[in-house]
Amino acid sequence: MGEWIQNQIEVMASDLEIELKSVVHSIFTFTADPSFLKNDIRVKPDLDSLGALGDTGWYCIRSILWAANYELPKTVTALREPIFNESGVILACGSSFQWEDGKVATFQGSFLSNLTMDLTVIGTEGTLHINDFIIPFEELSATFSTASRSGFTDLVTAWNPRPSDHIVMTDLPQEVRMVRQFASLVRSIKESGAKPDNTWPTISRKTQLVLDAVKASIEKGFEPVEVVS
Amino acid sequence: MGEWIQNQIEVMASDLEIELKSVVHSIFTFTADPSFLKNDIRVKPDLDSLGALGDTGWYCIRSILWAANYELPKTVTALREPIFNESGVILACGSSFQWEDGKVATFQGSFLSNLTMDLTVIGTEGTLHINDFIIPFEELSATFSTASRSGFTDLVTAWNPRPSDHIVMTDLPQEVRMVRQFASLVRSIKESGAKPDNTWPTISRKTQLVLDAVKASIEKGFEPVEVVS
Repeated sequence: MGEWIQNQIEVMASDLEIELKSVVHSIFTFTADPSFLKNDIRVKPDLDSLGALGDTGWYCIRSILWAANYELPKTVTALREPIFNESGVILACGSSFQWEDGKVATFQGSFLSNLTMDLTVIGTEGTLHINDFIIPFEELSATFSTASRSGFTDLVTAWNPRPSDHIVMTDLPQEVRMVRQFASLVRSIKESGAKPDNTWPTISRKTQLVLDAVKASIEKGFEPVEVVS
Repeated sequence: MGEWIQNQIEVMASDLEIELKSVVHSIFTFTADPSFLKNDIRVKPDLDSLGALGDTGWYCIRSILWAANYELPKTVTALREPIFNESGVILACGSSFQWEDGKVATFQGSFLSNLTMDLTVIGTEGTLHINDFIIPFEELSATFSTASRSGFTDLVTAWNPRPSDHIVMTDLPQEVRMVRQFASLVRSIKESGAKPDNTWPTISRKTQLVLDAVKASIEKGFEPVEVVS
């Protein structure tokens, strides 16, 4: 998810006083073709042995941490019946996450289901939906919907207020913005003597910690695993 | 979810050759007001003691069974950290379901989060999203989106094809259609000597069986529970 859309969503959530923190669900699936399922490094136990967890699950976990202000969950409990290939690499899996404050999240990731990228965040007072949170439907725009204090009409036959859709434009694609950001961080170290920015490695490390806990929970027969930073 | 929209979605899924069966997620949450949380029969242990599971969970389970052609899951494993009130009635909970053929589903239901009604069904070749599956956003229309064999543009900077939105109109609201259907079933028994139609009680009983299994899983410390018909 590009920073430009993240920023826009954060401003919107703040405007609507949405507390983005009760229930989160994230999905990333795609149908890998037979050649991928046979040859790709992501399905080889001696290469990227984390399979669909390391690929699709990474994005889901990262999006959930974003919704949780990067606060690590207390425990991670993998969902039962992940699918493995004949070498024991994960082709589909999921997990639930539990935080100290009662917040919960789930994700589902798979190489075996049609391309889908959903992030749903439900707080006490609002809901956020985004259905293209990794690669946007269109290169120079991204869409999401928000709802605030949703309810029904008097006769409970329709919603009032209804959720509203938002489109955010960008002049540069997210990949260009990422490279630009990286170059700018390098330049500020080389030319201005700045220290390395810890934002990105911190987020990556937290994502990896949660991902490793999901793997451990699968290996322990779907028992809850504590996330220790 | 009204039958009129169910029928339309089933026709659409069949046209697109979507196999609606790999990964399903359903959410129904609403923010109950303080009076509901104190006085409603749904939060009283000696009245509707199933709480948010019996209310919001019922709709989620029913929608998941619809997506699974009413085939019962093999096992049900409740998600950890449900929220209870001081009388021990569930205010928020969730579960995962596992079928023999590798299909999986999850749901989340709650009295404590903003009104949200999502059903997401992902098959090998297509995806269905509906965000108002219980009460439609508007009384005389309902919306859903479908995607079939989704993929990316050559440079993986956008989707091709994109999901498409659909609006289904109805001349009568779903509540009127339900009463009309019920009256028609009664009339065919009274006037034409027909036998009772088993469709609706069969679906209700299956929903209750799964719901009871979720309750049992919560009581057994989130262990998997077999669903026996």
